[in-house]
Amino acid sequence: MRAIFFLLIFLSQNIFAQESDSLIIRKFFNEELSKGKSYSMLDHLSNKIGGRLSGSPQAAQAVEWGKKTMEFLGFDKVWLQEVMVPHWVRGEKEQAKIISGKEKTEVRICALGNSVGTQKNGITATIIEVKNFKELEKLGRKNIEGKIVFFNRALDPTFITTGAAYGKGVDQRGGGASEAAKYGAVGVVVRSMTLAMDDHPHTGAMIYKDSVAKIPACAISTIGATKLSDAIKLNADTKFYFRQTCEMLPDEKSFNVIGEILGSEFPEEIIVVGGHLDSWDNGDGASDDGTGIVQSIEALRLFKVLGIRPRRTIRAVLFMNEESGVRGGDKYAELAKNNNEKHIAAIESDGGGFTPRSFGVDNEKAISKMQPWVELLKQYGISEIKKSWGGGGTDINPLKKEGTTLIGYHCDSQRYFDYHHSEIDTFDKVNKRELELGTGCIAAMIWLISEYGL
Amino acid sequence: MRAIFFLLIFLSQNIFAQESDSLIIRKFFNEELSKGKSYSMLDHLSNKIGGRLSGSPQAAQAVEWGKKTMEFLGFDKVWLQEVMVPHWVRGEKEQAKIISGKEKTEVRICALGNSVGTQKNGITATIIEVKNFKELEKLGRKNIEGKIVFFNRALDPTFITTGAAYGKGVDQRGGGASEAAKYGAVGVVVRSMTLAMDDHPHTGAMIYKDSVAKIPACAISTIGATKLSDAIKLNADTKFYFRQTCEMLPDEKSFNVIGEILGSEFPEEIIVVGGHLDSWDNGDGASDDGTGIVQSIEALRLFKVLGIRPRRTIRAVLFMNEESGVRGGDKYAELAKNNNEKHIAAIESDGGGFTPRSFGVDNEKAISKMQPWVELLKQYGISEIKKSWGGGGTDINPLKKEGTTLIGYHCDSQRYFDYHHSEIDTFDKVNKRELELGTGCIAAMIWLISEYGL
Repeated sequence: MRAIFFLLIFLSQNIFAQESDSLIIRKFFNEELSKGKSYSMLDHLSNKIGGRLSGSPQAAQAVEWGKKTMEFLGFDKVWLQEVMVPHWVRGEKEQAKIISGKEKTEVRICALGNSVGTQKNGITATIIEVKNFKELEKLGRKNIEGKIVFFNRALDPTFITTGAAYGKGVDQRGGGASEAAKYGAVGVVVRSMTLAMDDHPHTGAMIYKDSVAKIPACAISTIGATKLSDAIKLNADTKFYFRQTCEMLPDEKSFNVIGEILGSEFPEEIIVVGGHLDSWDNGDGASDDGTGIVQSIEALRLFKVLGIRPRRTIRAVLFMNEESGVRGGDKYAELAKNNNEKHIAAIESDGGGFTPRSFGVDNEKAISKMQPWVELLKQYGISEIKKSWGGGGTDINPLKKEGTTLIGYHCDSQRYFDYHHSEIDTFDKVNKRELELGTGCIAAMIWLISEYGL
Repeated sequence: MRAIFFLLIFLSQNIFAQESDSLIIRKFFNEELSKGKSYSMLDHLSNKIGGRLSGSPQAAQAVEWGKKTMEFLGFDKVWLQEVMVPHWVRGEKEQAKIISGKEKTEVRICALGNSVGTQKNGITATIIEVKNFKELEKLGRKNIEGKIVFFNRALDPTFITTGAAYGKGVDQRGGGASEAAKYGAVGVVVRSMTLAMDDHPHTGAMIYKDSVAKIPACAISTIGATKLSDAIKLNADTKFYFRQTCEMLPDEKSFNVIGEILGSEFPEEIIVVGGHLDSWDNGDGASDDGTGIVQSIEALRLFKVLGIRPRRTIRAVLFMNEESGVRGGDKYAELAKNNNEKHIAAIESDGGGFTPRSFGVDNEKAISKMQPWVELLKQYGISEIKKSWGGGGTDINPLKKEGTTLIGYHCDSQRYFDYHHSEIDTFDKVNKRELELGTGCIAAMIWLISEYGL
């Protein structure tokens, strides 16, 4: 009898808690969907500042904007964290041609991030197509030396989550140049990392190995890749010409931008929400990762404007340099450790501002604590809180060694890689309501962690 | 012991069934995502044929295209069902101005479907703003007679499903003209039924009551509505001018287009999947409802191309005249009854080709039978099979009185009303993979019903 009595009390407490959580969460969404600032902030970041390569004047403007915005919103504390970042510049518009006998066909390329340039007049060489590093190894130096290598393994469209398809293809972009250089290649052309068939080349980071020559690397649009592959099939002596004047300059001083609202009961327990302030330069960086930036700021603004004081400290972090080095993420984790800060959870939004789907969490204990929350978030589009492959996000992953629970906000993935790292990653691709629903879900997740801990 | 033995057999059969269903469903998705035809069919319907008002030459072309397409795909039987449809034409480009004293401001409008035109030179009258029919009643004839009534109740952005917001607002468009005419209004202007703030007016059906005068009705863009409301606030004598030459012509002969694959075991049990072939004329009708049309045809093509013979008969129905009379839907149900056909289920896709979310079903018995299927469909985006408000879809609802289970395919709703019935309901708004995932989910649902009945 007594057991039943306590069970009833326990159940009713839980039910009341769920009800009041549900009302708080509804307030976040009502405010955001009717008077939200996510979209107008994104408009400014995308259209007034634009592409924000690490070390660029635009990245500096974005830092300034982020700081002023959070100060204007009246967060309890706003500050900058200095960090030195790589400073790569694209240079002049890239050029490329397929040369088959006397026929020359222009194709659209862009330099990969961190790549060296070609000679001033570009390079021309016979081009050879491979699908992966194994094929390269099989072909060996005798077939590759002096040639340009064309990595043309398409992303697999049968993956339902596009990030999984990307994950299986991106080795070509990241490591292709150094792999090819091992066998004496003079340049690499990589099929754009997108599932769409169009004429927009997609840039993204590549990394040189120290042990081999640094050869220039570019991405070709998927339409260009198809043309190039067809040309090689027709004529094995097909040549490729490309010219790019990109270069790596000395490191630049930059900043993470941080704003926080102090917790009322456990101010020493910190919940981070963040995205990255830098972007590639060819588009305006709206989806990668302007959306994560404005959702992070806006989630805190919702607490502020609704007069909801969190029990734990909540902190919006605008990380610098995710795209080409993660220096901001590393610096943040380093300082968190040095300052003995206790980060109980970090949430990252870096998959675009599309319609909400799920949260991915890096540890089973937290996942199991969060399961009742799915019922609260379901009506807003969150159908699961589940184990996440690859942690919560590139910027927050360095916090893992301090035992922080890492959480990725996962919105719908179908459109993301259509725009990602390309000239069509622009403001008009983001839907106002989808962005706002994401902000609401993130604010709700912060609220629940702040109330109940992990 | 024996009970446990049978339980084990039962469980293992169920597990094997789920496994083999899961493989079949995976085949649908693999085929569709790598070699699907949904997108190229939609390209043709949207860009080669375009907007398809009932009774228009484009609607006739779409009928021809639908029949030829399904014949080419080798369905077991393809046929037309004759149906007389309303034939409303828009006429010349509509014009409108806000007139405040000497100041004239052009605004963007479009005639509502079924509306009469204005006089040849347009009409000009004092305009009065209301939010709903109650306000109209309160104002009464003395305040309304001789004026134009402006219905300006915005859709409520705090609804999470946009269809719910639309449902709460659309009385203004559908019945506003006759309500205003009761009090002697000479015209109505209705705020566009969209949650977006932009300059695209959204058309859609309105219906006249027989008992009152037929006065011209148009939709104004949400930006225009804001300007107009501001002008009225500043000057209560603000006038409005609009001109539209739309008119209702005599009914035209048209057709539903039907293709079917016969069931191997229960050919007399029919599962319908459909969308509507007609559309409004200002855009190209890609999202409303080109997507439903191509998903319906493609779902059957997947069975055909994969050599999967359904146990029950499956039928793609391209309904005519959903937008302005539902004559095709009514005719289909009438003939189904006259021919003693047994329709066990009907699925409609008429919410765009966005990323999959759920199926809505009109009866609890079917919902409960379908619950184990959620597990099979979850990885493809279907997080729920649940009770649906408003049946499965306008075209299939007339089948309800025959006891057919009605099922709506529900994709993500956030973007739909941004485009719906406007000039920006165009092909480029549809994402290839989102469309294909929808096709896969619909094919999977047909497969499961065909295998297990309802």
